[in-house]
Amino acid sequence: MNSRKLPKSIQGVIDQFSKLPGIGPKSASRLAFYLLTRPEQFAVDIGQALLDLRKNLVTCGQCFNVAEENPCLICSDGQRRQESLLVAEEPLDVLALERAGWDGRYHVLGGVISPINGIGPEQLRVRELFDRLKVTQSPIHELVLGTDPSLEGEATALYLQQQIERLGHDLPHLKDLKITRLARGLPVGSDLEYADELTLARALEGRKEY
Amino acid sequence: MNSRKLPKSIQGVIDQFSKLPGIGPKSASRLAFYLLTRPEQFAVDIGQALLDLRKNLVTCGQCFNVAEENPCLICSDGQRRQESLLVAEEPLDVLALERAGWDGRYHVLGGVISPINGIGPEQLRVRELFDRLKVTQSPIHELVLGTDPSLEGEATALYLQQQIERLGHDLPHLKDLKITRLARGLPVGSDLEYADELTLARALEGRKEY
Repeated sequence: MNSRKLPKSIQGVIDQFSKLPGIGPKSASRLAFYLLTRPEQFAVDIGQALLDLRKNLVTCGQCFNVAEENPCLICSDGQRRQESLLVAEEPLDVLALERAGWDGRYHVLGGVISPINGIGPEQLRVRELFDRLKVTQSPIHELVLGTDPSLEGEATALYLQQQIERLGHDLPHLKDLKITRLARGLPVGSDLEYADELTLARALEGRKEY
Repeated sequence: MNSRKLPKSIQGVIDQFSKLPGIGPKSASRLAFYLLTRPEQFAVDIGQALLDLRKNLVTCGQCFNVAEENPCLICSDGQRRQESLLVAEEPLDVLALERAGWDGRYHVLGGVISPINGIGPEQLRVRELFDRLKVTQSPIHELVLGTDPSLEGEATALYLQQQIERLGHDLPHLKDLKITRLARGLPVGSDLEYADELTLARALEGRKEY
């Protein structure tokens, strides 16, 4: 069947799936025809979940993560270490960090500085981060720069570190603020011989006493 | 965020996407959070397409392909060679064969014989295929067995070929029916040295004069 002969509703699902990252027209076709082999409710459930995605979703006014409450459950959790703030790029990174056991708070930037994509600090939650650091009541003692170990992630971390240092000149309560960066090194379970030079260099540089 | 803290609607999309073949929980998370970076309409469009998937879809009463009309556009197309019938496993195979330029008609089996999955000829459109072959008015001259070149596809093709030969004993108009099978050989653009032995053996067996 050329596109003229493929039923419109099937072509519609293929077109829509093809818009998703990592799903080409071939995978999209396979998915659409797979759905036709399942009971009708199967596709309807997926469709309904997508229609409901934005339902009850808000942006937390403190950490700027997606949430159902404002402030979100993480920000309003008194059991977490209030004095440790981790700067993350995206909500998906928060998910990964939660799984890894981070028990402080978050600040979601909403991306990284990327001049080539026209994204500067003003497009991100950078000013809001500085505002949080300026608060003198229950001040932050450690700021973890948790941006990706990519070119843009590193540049963003460096930019933040420099700006916060400058901020510290005028704000005495920031004098003792510890700024850290997530460790770079060999991924757990990986094979040393396959590590790229830069990663291995960072692993050597960051080596620890046994 | 553990699952308790992940907003229900996001978890819902992740759960639903994870049900699709080839999409694990990690890809599903990535897709869900990707949708959150796009305008709301983006996810709604995908959801709506899924809700509409079964809308106006029927099974063609002649070829048993999914279609919007019965008979489908292919079956009712007088320009196609009426005397050539290709037996396909699935609607997706029809799509591929149309792209490859097949200009005869189809018969969609709805799967292959697979005792391990409890699928015998009676679960497929096998009887309906025999019924089509029995018609003496505008009879079929060539039947292409277009099942997959897999173990089950080959077994199904062999079964059909044997049953149709038996059918031919009682039906004189089937005496001249040509039963063919799609050629097995080297995929176009592939590298001979990477071909598996069986494929290469079939390619040798089916070699043609230049």
